[in-house]
Amino acid sequence: MLAAWAQGEPAESIPIDDRGLHYGDGLFETIGTSGGRARFLAAHLGRLARGCAVLGIPAPDESVLAREIARAAALAPHVIVKVIVTRGRALARGYAFTGAETPTRIVTAWPWPEGPLAARDPARVATAGRAGSTPLLAGIKHLNRLEQVLACEEARQRGLDEVILVGRDGGIIGGAMTNLFMYHDGQLATPRADRCAVAGVMRGQVLAAASRLGFAACERDLTVRDLAGAQALWLTNVRVGLWPIGNLAGRECAVHAWTQPLQRAIETGAGGARLA
Amino acid sequence: MLAAWAQGEPAESIPIDDRGLHYGDGLFETIGTSGGRARFLAAHLGRLARGCAVLGIPAPDESVLAREIARAAALAPHVIVKVIVTRGRALARGYAFTGAETPTRIVTAWPWPEGPLAARDPARVATAGRAGSTPLLAGIKHLNRLEQVLACEEARQRGLDEVILVGRDGGIIGGAMTNLFMYHDGQLATPRADRCAVAGVMRGQVLAAASRLGFAACERDLTVRDLAGAQALWLTNVRVGLWPIGNLAGRECAVHAWTQPLQRAIETGAGGARLA
Repeated sequence: MLAAWAQGEPAESIPIDDRGLHYGDGLFETIGTSGGRARFLAAHLGRLARGCAVLGIPAPDESVLAREIARAAALAPHVIVKVIVTRGRALARGYAFTGAETPTRIVTAWPWPEGPLAARDPARVATAGRAGSTPLLAGIKHLNRLEQVLACEEARQRGLDEVILVGRDGGIIGGAMTNLFMYHDGQLATPRADRCAVAGVMRGQVLAAASRLGFAACERDLTVRDLAGAQALWLTNVRVGLWPIGNLAGRECAVHAWTQPLQRAIETGAGGARLA
Repeated sequence: MLAAWAQGEPAESIPIDDRGLHYGDGLFETIGTSGGRARFLAAHLGRLARGCAVLGIPAPDESVLAREIARAAALAPHVIVKVIVTRGRALARGYAFTGAETPTRIVTAWPWPEGPLAARDPARVATAGRAGSTPLLAGIKHLNRLEQVLACEEARQRGLDEVILVGRDGGIIGGAMTNLFMYHDGQLATPRADRCAVAGVMRGQVLAAASRLGFAACERDLTVRDLAGAQALWLTNVRVGLWPIGNLAGRECAVHAWTQPLQRAIETGAGGARLA
């Protein structure tokens, strides 16, 4: 960790009775920076505000938080800025909150030496051994992330870059730390936001880039059958960008021709003209 | 909060990069005390150790932790001692852990003026409006508790003592902060541990007391139909003990004759002889 602030002040610790620790009662954002500036900031702040509304946590002032993120982003050309907002210190013991808590606002900066969209080998993935649970509070980026922690450990033990979480009903949730895209018969598809453990900022950027490029893309329920029949697959998050899957449970997957145009469109925010 | 310790030392804060805060990557126990001593200590320590094994967190030394719990329990005749064990400080950013983390061991003491099994009116409950998710890591008492936080808020808004969480498949999970027992045709029943959000220590005490008293009791899948057909219902946790439900979604429920014998058997650890 490069630096940390709580309530805007340099901090090394948080109160031992914070509800973020006790219940995971809060939200976070993982923001990539480039050239010392936060990328996709509006999307991050928007998702954080929506999450606060869902949990009934007063959202931080956007301009205050944006200044604090900018300060963290300025530490190096490429860092990961992690924002955490919790409901605050517990005013009483127990799950119930009173509504009078003061939210805790944490900003931390972490090394990200490779920066955005570094060249890397296509990902090696497989479906997770344990059935994914129905996403709790699907889409928002809350602090209850044990399922992701354990899935990442499974990936490590199996020598994979990522595992795909599948619900008990056979529906695809996504990667442990990524959203999933697949290509079949001329169309990109990704699970709907209400199936995702997190509706990723990069997932939104891919959908927007596809739209600008005129590539067909949709959000829909996807199953393990769709996964098996996909002609190409990608993982997305702010850190890995749009990362093609090269191997799915031992099956080699070709890197699709849309990969580079999408990556370029995400980087530049530009559309089809650039591809002419 | 009356007092707090981390790693055995008096503490007011924890490191800002603790994985308990960032991911809910840890476990807790809520222990009632009586006469300055922890109750059901072996059951709490056993569940904590099992949870540590599930999450791959090195379990704290039981004798060290027991001494720390005893110190907190001695603060007043009746307190709630809350133990939290997290995986420790993050050695890198991201969900994945390295296995080299040093677990964080937190003991806090909270007021519990009413003490165990205080006389109280039967509980007013109803089923929760939001479908409960498949319990993540069913049974163990991990720190991912947002669903419980929001369900408790729903109960408060509806003027209820508790809400019952029901899965999308119609299966009963239990109360937001309690386990659920029901009585039908001569038998107690409670959802199986793998359906519970937490396999409660008091739930175990009720099953053991029923066995000692010769009352039929079983763990099985229960549905909203079973709930509707139940002739009596109870909520259990360490704080409320065995709490009869007096009103379920507007339907008055009689307090069953087994209530007092079970409460007495839980308190004394004694069996049928005392009831002769």
